[in-house]
Amino acid sequence: MFQTLPGFREFYPEDCAIRNYIFGQWRQSALRFAFQEFDGPLLEPLELITAKSGDEIVSQLFNFEDKGGRAVTLRPELTPTLARLVGAKAGSIKRPVKWFGIAENFRYEKPQKGRLRSHYQFNADILGESSPAADAEIIALLITALCSFGLSEKEFVLRLSDRDLWLLLLEQHGLTGDIATGALNVIDKMERESPESLLKMMGEKHVPGAEAVLADASKLVECTSLEAVESFFAGRENNVVTGERVSSRLDQWRELLGHLHAMGLGGFIRVDLGIVRGLAYYTGFVFEAFQTVGKGRALAGGGRYDHLVEKLGFQAMPAVGFGMGDVTLRDLLEDQKLLPDPKPELDGYVVVAGGENEARAALRDVAALRAKGLKIDRPLKQQGFGKQFKTAGQSGARFALIYGEVEVAEGKLKLRDLVSGEESLLTADEAASRMLQG
Amino acid sequence: MFQTLPGFREFYPEDCAIRNYIFGQWRQSALRFAFQEFDGPLLEPLELITAKSGDEIVSQLFNFEDKGGRAVTLRPELTPTLARLVGAKAGSIKRPVKWFGIAENFRYEKPQKGRLRSHYQFNADILGESSPAADAEIIALLITALCSFGLSEKEFVLRLSDRDLWLLLLEQHGLTGDIATGALNVIDKMERESPESLLKMMGEKHVPGAEAVLADASKLVECTSLEAVESFFAGRENNVVTGERVSSRLDQWRELLGHLHAMGLGGFIRVDLGIVRGLAYYTGFVFEAFQTVGKGRALAGGGRYDHLVEKLGFQAMPAVGFGMGDVTLRDLLEDQKLLPDPKPELDGYVVVAGGENEARAALRDVAALRAKGLKIDRPLKQQGFGKQFKTAGQSGARFALIYGEVEVAEGKLKLRDLVSGEESLLTADEAASRMLQG
Repeated sequence: MFQTLPGFREFYPEDCAIRNYIFGQWRQSALRFAFQEFDGPLLEPLELITAKSGDEIVSQLFNFEDKGGRAVTLRPELTPTLARLVGAKAGSIKRPVKWFGIAENFRYEKPQKGRLRSHYQFNADILGESSPAADAEIIALLITALCSFGLSEKEFVLRLSDRDLWLLLLEQHGLTGDIATGALNVIDKMERESPESLLKMMGEKHVPGAEAVLADASKLVECTSLEAVESFFAGRENNVVTGERVSSRLDQWRELLGHLHAMGLGGFIRVDLGIVRGLAYYTGFVFEAFQTVGKGRALAGGGRYDHLVEKLGFQAMPAVGFGMGDVTLRDLLEDQKLLPDPKPELDGYVVVAGGENEARAALRDVAALRAKGLKIDRPLKQQGFGKQFKTAGQSGARFALIYGEVEVAEGKLKLRDLVSGEESLLTADEAASRMLQG
Repeated sequence: MFQTLPGFREFYPEDCAIRNYIFGQWRQSALRFAFQEFDGPLLEPLELITAKSGDEIVSQLFNFEDKGGRAVTLRPELTPTLARLVGAKAGSIKRPVKWFGIAENFRYEKPQKGRLRSHYQFNADILGESSPAADAEIIALLITALCSFGLSEKEFVLRLSDRDLWLLLLEQHGLTGDIATGALNVIDKMERESPESLLKMMGEKHVPGAEAVLADASKLVECTSLEAVESFFAGRENNVVTGERVSSRLDQWRELLGHLHAMGLGGFIRVDLGIVRGLAYYTGFVFEAFQTVGKGRALAGGGRYDHLVEKLGFQAMPAVGFGMGDVTLRDLLEDQKLLPDPKPELDGYVVVAGGENEARAALRDVAALRAKGLKIDRPLKQQGFGKQFKTAGQSGARFALIYGEVEVAEGKLKLRDLVSGEESLLTADEAASRMLQG
C-alpha cells in the first residue's frame, strides 16, 4: 500500500483548512504592515544554499543531481532566494524593500515532534535600511502576526539580544574575526553545557584567554534588562577602544525599545543576552519568539544580517528579518484551543422533489446562485426526498433549497432555514438575497 | 552570479500578486461548487507515480534517491496523491468526495513557451459517483472557473468526447483489452499523422484489420454533434453485442448534455469525438477546454478515470476530474488584457513633521490602525517633511497621515486624501473610520 514519505504531511480537507487559516493570518498581518509577497523556485542550485550556510548544511538537504547534471536541492529556507532576487535588482529597486513569503521548505532530518522534513515558513524581511526602526518594524510584525491567532503576553515573549554587543565584549578580550565567531558559537551553548565542556570547545576553536572570556560572558548572559546591560558595560569604561562604540550601540538599543514601546508592544519584550543564535551570518540585533506555556519552544526567530546580499556576489545591502514555522505554531494553537472549526462553510443544499422539470429548474438556479458567490451543493444522483433532505442536514449547509412541482410551477423554490426551520416560497433572486444575509 | 534554474520561475511582488489572483479565482470557484481543498506532499515515492503512468514517465521526472535510499520524485501531478488519500479512507469517507487542490508540479522537460519545468495546476475531482451528473458538475466547474477571469464563449470552448464510445466501436471490430487501448493511442494521433504512418503504428501495436478500423474511426472523429454520433452508430444496429450498450451510453450523453444546458453552459460545449486523450487511464467522458483565440492551446483537460484508485491497491471507486495549468491561462489572460493591476493596495503612509513626541504618537496610531485591518506604511529613517511627503505620494497610498506639533498637541493627526487633496484634523479612531470607507 502506498504511503506518504516519513516526515511529510498529508492535508486532508480539515487539515488543509487549518493550514490555509494560518497562511491567511500570516498574509493579512504582513499586508497591514505594507509588506509585499514574493516567492521563488522550490528547487535551487546547491551552491546558492552552501554560499549562505557553508558545506556542512549539505548533509541535511534534499539535494541531488538533475537530469542535466546540475547539483540542485529542495530549498531548506527562503532567505538565499530572497537575497538573490533583491540582489539582482539592487541597482534599481526602491528601498526599503519590505517583502514577505510563505514557503514550503525541506530538510533531511530525523523527523520528530515539531521538526518535520517539510514545513511551511512565514518569512518577512526588510532590506536596504540599517536603522533600528527597521528592526522594530520586523519585530512588531512578528509579535502582531502571533497575536492575530489570539496569542498574548500570557503565551509568548520576544527574547531580544545583540550580536554586536557580544562582539564588542569579545573585542575587549582581544578577540576578532573568525576567532570571535568561534567563541560566540561556544557562548551560544552556555545554557546547555557544563563549564568543562565549554572550556574544551573554546580550546578547539583556538580561543586565547578562554577562562576569562567565559567568566565575563556568564555575566552578560545574565543581563535581562537594558539597565543591566548598561551597568555591565559601565564598569569597563576604561576600555578606550570599544567604549564609544558600546555607548553608540546602547543608543540604538534605546531607539529600538522606544519604537516597540510606542507601538504598545513593550510587554512582549524580554531583553535576554543569553540568545546568541549560532548562525554566523547574523550581525546585530537577534531575537526569538518563545512560548512561555507548554513545551517552551521557539515559535520564530530572526535578526539582522547585513552581509548576506554582498556575500552572494551582489551590491552590499543591510537586511533584517524573521522566519516563523507552521508546525510549532500549530501545536501551540491546538494546545491553547485557538484553532477555528475547520468545517466547510456551505450556504445551501439542493433537494429535488419531482421529475426532470424540477431537476432542470434546480440546476438553473444552482448556476445562478453560485455566480452570485453563494456556496451551493446538490445531489449527484437521483434519490428520494427523505434521503436528500437527510444529506442536506448532514452537509453543514445553512439552508435547504427545495424544488417540488408546486414551487417550480410558480417559478419559485422553497427556502428552508435548517437552523430555525423557517420556510419561505421565493424566487431564486429573493433566495439569493436572503442567503447572502446569512 | 546566482541564477534561477532553467524552466523555473521567480515571483517578484508584481508576479506574485498575479499568481495569487489566479489562485484566488480558482479557490473561489471551487468553494462555490462545494469542493473542499486538500494537498499532499511535494515529494512522493517514485513507485506511486509509475503505478499510475508507467515506467516511461521516469525520463520526464525530477526523481532521485534520498539520503535514506528511497526512490523519490517531485510530483509531476496531484492525481496519484489524491487517489492515495481518498483510497486510504475509502471505507469511511462520505461520498461523493468533491475535492480540489492547487499544486506545484514538476516535469523535467525542455522548457518552452507554455511548458515550464515547474508550474501550478488547479485540480478538481469527484470520487465515489459514476453518474453523468458528476461529469456535468466537474465540467461546469471547469467552465465557470475560466469565466471567473472574464473569459467567455468568444475565447474558449469545451471539446467533449467519450472513450467508452470509442471502445464500443473498437469492440465492434473485435478489438478489446490492451489491443483496443493501443489502437486508441493511434487514433489519438489521427489529427496530426499521415494515413501511412497511422497504419504503421497500428501494425506496431498488433492491431488486426487496421485499415477498416482507421476508415471507421475517421468517420467517428468527424462527428461534432450528438445527432451525428447517434446516426453514426444507428447505421450499425445489426451489431447485437454492442448495440444495447451504445444505446445506453447515448442515454448518458443526453443526461450529461441536459445537465450542462440546464446550467446555462450549452454554448461552451462542442461535441468532438476527435478528442481521445492518449492517457490509458481515462475510462469514459473526456474533455478539453480549448482556446479559440490566439495560439489555440488547451487550457485544461480531464475526464473520467474509474480504475485508478483500485489500480493503486485500494477499494474500487469511480472518479472524474480535470487539471488546469497556470502558464497557458496566464498567457491568454495577458493577451486578452484580463489581468488585474498588480499594484499593492496601501491605505495610508505616515509623515512625521516634528520630533520624538510626534514620532511616538505616529507609532502608537500606526499600531492601532493596522490592528483595525488598515494597510499602513511609515518611513524607517528620519527624513525631512518634503522627502517623506514625496514618498507618501509614490507609495500608492490613498491617504497621508501627518503628525506635526499642532496636531499631536491636540491628540489628533491630519489626514490628507492624496487623490482629492482634501485635509481633515481627526483622532486616530476618526481617521480609521474615514479610511475604511475608502
